[in-house]
Amino acid sequence: MTERVLTGDRVTGKLHLGHYAGSLQNRVHLQDQYESLVFLADVQALTTHFERQEQIRTNIREMTLDYLSVGIDPEKSTIFIQSMIPEIAELTVYFSMFVSVNTLRHNPTIKAESQGRGLDELYYGFLGYPVSQAADIAICKATIIPVGDDQLPHLELARKIVRRFNELYQPILVEPQAMISNTPRLVGTDGNAKMSKSLGNAIELDSSAEDIAYRIKRAVTDPARVHKNDPGHPEICPIYAYHRAFGPDQLTEIREGCERGTMGCTACKERITLTLEKLIAPMRERRAFYASRPHLVDDILMTGTKYTRGIASATMKEVREAMSLDHFSLSAMERGML
Amino acid sequence: MTERVLTGDRVTGKLHLGHYAGSLQNRVHLQDQYESLVFLADVQALTTHFERQEQIRTNIREMTLDYLSVGIDPEKSTIFIQSMIPEIAELTVYFSMFVSVNTLRHNPTIKAESQGRGLDELYYGFLGYPVSQAADIAICKATIIPVGDDQLPHLELARKIVRRFNELYQPILVEPQAMISNTPRLVGTDGNAKMSKSLGNAIELDSSAEDIAYRIKRAVTDPARVHKNDPGHPEICPIYAYHRAFGPDQLTEIREGCERGTMGCTACKERITLTLEKLIAPMRERRAFYASRPHLVDDILMTGTKYTRGIASATMKEVREAMSLDHFSLSAMERGML
Repeated sequence: MTERVLTGDRVTGKLHLGHYAGSLQNRVHLQDQYESLVFLADVQALTTHFERQEQIRTNIREMTLDYLSVGIDPEKSTIFIQSMIPEIAELTVYFSMFVSVNTLRHNPTIKAESQGRGLDELYYGFLGYPVSQAADIAICKATIIPVGDDQLPHLELARKIVRRFNELYQPILVEPQAMISNTPRLVGTDGNAKMSKSLGNAIELDSSAEDIAYRIKRAVTDPARVHKNDPGHPEICPIYAYHRAFGPDQLTEIREGCERGTMGCTACKERITLTLEKLIAPMRERRAFYASRPHLVDDILMTGTKYTRGIASATMKEVREAMSLDHFSLSAMERGML
Repeated sequence: MTERVLTGDRVTGKLHLGHYAGSLQNRVHLQDQYESLVFLADVQALTTHFERQEQIRTNIREMTLDYLSVGIDPEKSTIFIQSMIPEIAELTVYFSMFVSVNTLRHNPTIKAESQGRGLDELYYGFLGYPVSQAADIAICKATIIPVGDDQLPHLELARKIVRRFNELYQPILVEPQAMISNTPRLVGTDGNAKMSKSLGNAIELDSSAEDIAYRIKRAVTDPARVHKNDPGHPEICPIYAYHRAFGPDQLTEIREGCERGTMGCTACKERITLTLEKLIAPMRERRAFYASRPHLVDDILMTGTKYTRGIASATMKEVREAMSLDHFSLSAMERGML
């Protein structure tokens, strides 16, 4: 069996360097080794953004440009929109028959949310998003799911659901394997452990050179380093984290300069600004290319969606047969009634 | 707007006189006045019978024969299979975004089940069946739902979900109206308030003349009436309930004979046996007609399913537009990409 990698993003906002370091960069490598599907999870975005449907619509185009700009290549990867694969909803409904509320409560994300607000206050669709996630994976017959450590329990639940289906009916679904990425989470420009658009500490993938310079200039550094020649502590400095993530070849020099107090924060920030500009400039160029060709972007999304729908409808056909839901005999179908 | 009536049954077993008195008889009348859709709720059956998929498959054919035998006329009514309308699953997923677990808990059926076993022990799909029921109704744009008093809270929830959708997005869905039927529940042959196959106290619609006679002979009557000439209490006697439901023209005679002790239970039972045989004989004949023509039954189901799918996909098109999920511009669609 050919390996098939599936990755996706909730369509809740433009992507930034945190996404690039944590996942996008890896996807660009994976598309050379495996069949790769990348999806825009707009249905999953609705679990929390059901009142912001216009925002989701806009984000789909922006995030597609993000994908294309970082080098996800439509010749190598299939990009599709989740809501345009209605078979996912069908499979979600069938999976939901045999997944208990109790199982869902133990999912870490659901647990965290229900501890805050109580299970009763959750929306039904939000409570069930791990079921829907299992359906995303199973409908595509994805074999490899790149995940961070923190997402392992989600994948474990998807595997459990697939196994249960295979036991109950027929072993037609593929139990996906985790490919654990050890990329640490990228720190925000304010020093917060997580770079996040909503925290205002992100550097977006479509930043201009001025945006990058401005963001870096305002970024926090080691607060203990008051004077330029004070020895710094790179491990606690966001700027050093960016050097590590995006400019590994200069890393020893930067570390030593900081620790010895021979390179000041201003010089260090100038260096990372250059590094980031070198990283982002070609992204900006690719983005401009696609942004000026909206029909081409449409074609990429439609081609990817059509391809994925072929896989999904073949899977649903097998699911229906396995569940004895193929209600009409072949002969009747052949008589052209449906 | 033309009124459209929707009714359905969980595909969990063959239908019996209780279903006939409570609902089927009424549907036969309604099909002369309204556009009527009747559906086999196999997906809803899976919420409790997910391990009995073969039984559901068999029951679909049996229940279709039940429908046809009582006089649901494929020229007047549309009969369809729920699982063959995948748009219902899609709409269920979208509805589930804005229905809270708390709302579902207050549904009387869910409440009863979760009091017994605890909310945690429920399956996710079972917890959500009122959401799926709302989708059944909304996808068909049904305007009238015949219900018993006890089902009113379910319909109220469906109306609430439709209203919420219309507020959140666009007012495209139809808020269904209840048509309350005052048919009392039919008592079982053992005196249990509810006739039910699983209690073994039902007279099935495909009963032979011998089956009817046997069931009636073994039925309980007023236990206070030991001797033939003892005055009886018709109000507590299942046989009297059957006379009331199926032989109203003889009712005064039967009541007086029982209360005065001039008609014994044996004679009374012979009378109801005749009445039921007169009711069921033409059903049996129609059933035999269709049972010997499985391709015709297939055609009826496929034609009904195809017709309903037309309605459902038109509704989903509107739903997608209302929710800003119509992701490709018309011009792109016209270029034939999807």
